[in-house]
Amino acid sequence: MKITCTQENLSQGLNIVTHIASKNTSLPILNNVLIKAEKGVVNLITTNLEMGIVCQVRAKIEKDGSYTVGSKLLNDYINLLTNEKVELELKDDFFEIKSSKQETKIKGNSAEEFPLIPQVEKNNPYACQISDLLMALTQVLFAVSVSETRPEISGIYLNFNNGILTLAATDSYRLAEKKIKLMEKNSIEKEVIIPARTIQELFRILSGLSDRAEIEDNGTKENNKINIYFEDNQILFVFDNVELVSRIIEGQYPNYRQIIPSEHKTRAIINITDFIKAVKSAALFSRTGIYDISLDFKKGELKITSANNQLGESKTELEGNIEGENNKIVLNYRYLLDGLQNLDSTEVILEMMDGNNPCILRPVESLSENKEAIADVNYLYIVMPIKQ
Amino acid sequence: MKITCTQENLSQGLNIVTHIASKNTSLPILNNVLIKAEKGVVNLITTNLEMGIVCQVRAKIEKDGSYTVGSKLLNDYINLLTNEKVELELKDDFFEIKSSKQETKIKGNSAEEFPLIPQVEKNNPYACQISDLLMALTQVLFAVSVSETRPEISGIYLNFNNGILTLAATDSYRLAEKKIKLMEKNSIEKEVIIPARTIQELFRILSGLSDRAEIEDNGTKENNKINIYFEDNQILFVFDNVELVSRIIEGQYPNYRQIIPSEHKTRAIINITDFIKAVKSAALFSRTGIYDISLDFKKGELKITSANNQLGESKTELEGNIEGENNKIVLNYRYLLDGLQNLDSTEVILEMMDGNNPCILRPVESLSENKEAIADVNYLYIVMPIKQ
Repeated sequence: MKITCTQENLSQGLNIVTHIASKNTSLPILNNVLIKAEKGVVNLITTNLEMGIVCQVRAKIEKDGSYTVGSKLLNDYINLLTNEKVELELKDDFFEIKSSKQETKIKGNSAEEFPLIPQVEKNNPYACQISDLLMALTQVLFAVSVSETRPEISGIYLNFNNGILTLAATDSYRLAEKKIKLMEKNSIEKEVIIPARTIQELFRILSGLSDRAEIEDNGTKENNKINIYFEDNQILFVFDNVELVSRIIEGQYPNYRQIIPSEHKTRAIINITDFIKAVKSAALFSRTGIYDISLDFKKGELKITSANNQLGESKTELEGNIEGENNKIVLNYRYLLDGLQNLDSTEVILEMMDGNNPCILRPVESLSENKEAIADVNYLYIVMPIKQ
Repeated sequence: MKITCTQENLSQGLNIVTHIASKNTSLPILNNVLIKAEKGVVNLITTNLEMGIVCQVRAKIEKDGSYTVGSKLLNDYINLLTNEKVELELKDDFFEIKSSKQETKIKGNSAEEFPLIPQVEKNNPYACQISDLLMALTQVLFAVSVSETRPEISGIYLNFNNGILTLAATDSYRLAEKKIKLMEKNSIEKEVIIPARTIQELFRILSGLSDRAEIEDNGTKENNKINIYFEDNQILFVFDNVELVSRIIEGQYPNYRQIIPSEHKTRAIINITDFIKAVKSAALFSRTGIYDISLDFKKGELKITSANNQLGESKTELEGNIEGENNKIVLNYRYLLDGLQNLDSTEVILEMMDGNNPCILRPVESLSENKEAIADVNYLYIVMPIKQ
């Protein structure tokens, strides 16, 4: 194999694929990146067996071939070069890398030792805007369960139906749900659970591309599109020069729709910045390991209190538009903060029945007549109460 | 005790004193801040027994008194308030803190439980510019020994003599030395060793003040002055509204001047940015735990190489102004990088005898005729070679 490319292209590709090729001591080959030059195309490929990433790099191929070397080492080395032509050539079991002032040899392993990446046929895509998906991932990912005891909620739920992609995540103490529009009609309904690590990796790569696109002022519609394909128990995301394939979690996602309260006795509309500060103040005096703070709703006023025998107690009054009955609920401040910080609005609507039922947070825009026009309207966040 | 002050002043003071009042489980009172209101002055005081910090806060005293509460808790709470009037009142064993919308009670401990802070008479100060001292601390602090086996090099050496303050630090593998001007003549020569943690804390506080001064565009000469006093085995730094007192390390600092080579056979002048990149490239292929890279000096060219059986090898050529004999030295890349990254110049002068003797790094400005005019001229950094 012998290829020539720019430092910039190679570095960009390696930055995308290297992250999952981290320290894997049980199967060292997974720390490597497979570099494959054939049919006029150079691909960089990494996998952690759960997911695989293929990134195409613009390069001139002088001689076909494939070989693997330590991904982090190659990435660190290429990142340090200035942007100029870089020549990579396989000689025995070394990669020789030459640039104007530097010459390096990196030891590697045969491509045959590298695991196969599952192939997914590119049929019947679901497509959405990358910017919409990124926003949705930010708003649900944090709520996913970190415990492995219930595998079905250790992933993000995706439902493709009737032109809408619904994303949901829960750890059974709180739940986040977001709906975004699909770009093209695909009449086949589909629901899957994707491992949280896959979604984190997708988010990391999309954020990087999105930052770059902003810098290059290059956010044309085609660049802002992601295609999603399915085959057997695999999902494939295709965007820009990247393909990310991952296994799907088997199992049935809980029917979370049934726990979303359909009515409320109290509704409050509160400025989110003030709310967050007040919750953080109260959090300082919540009980260790319980994280409890109380929310008291009265006409025109939300009072947030907490008390801890060892430390002291705290009380904050917030003004707000509060309708319905006087009411009280005790919440885990960490779950409440997570929701408030991800609402992406200036005001939150909080709706509740009583202290024994979950409360709902939504952006104030969801009350608007013209919901369609507002991107963030289809978000909701539910927190279970700490029962007294 | 009852005092009123602005959130801003209280918060600024607490940010300064809280850092050293961190989790101390063996003596919990050290996690507290002592708030002392007497004779028209409010002081915030913390200590870790090795050093103490006193920060004066502008406040209106309605009733004298003193009391201690958890420093981090109070700091976190006050930081969350908006900038408005805050009222603090001692009621039984609680501090009551009131602002317009918030009321909080924090449990505390009697001031009598709090350790005494050593008193140092403010006689015969040594004074220097804060900006000079900050720069000097940046340039020497990183070289201090982290091992406790030789207490005398676990601190920074300060020598006040003839209008010059010399600062030095070493861990016996490398040494950094910086000289700055004192602002006023003090004819008494003085040399001391100050614990690294004290210097780190001083650096942290001075940096914060310096950032703030820049924001407020308030860097008048008086604000940029630090006074240093000695008494028995204590040192006292006084600046702005802060006093930091610390113990001095007993013992004799090594006579490091004798290891500074007085002659050289090879002198190279190299662009620092290029040098750093080349060292980092070579570092990737240095041997695990040895960190060795080779520097080969020839007329007009510095070649940096490294090799590692497991990974591969690397070679970089740098152009430079190289005088004297062809020469070669093997260095620990981490020590070399530390020096290069702290030189604060565009070019480094590297001087060496041979591969068995230490090499010296200095900023290129030290060759200038008009040394006095250049702030960074009096810096030097020595690295011991890895002998072959």
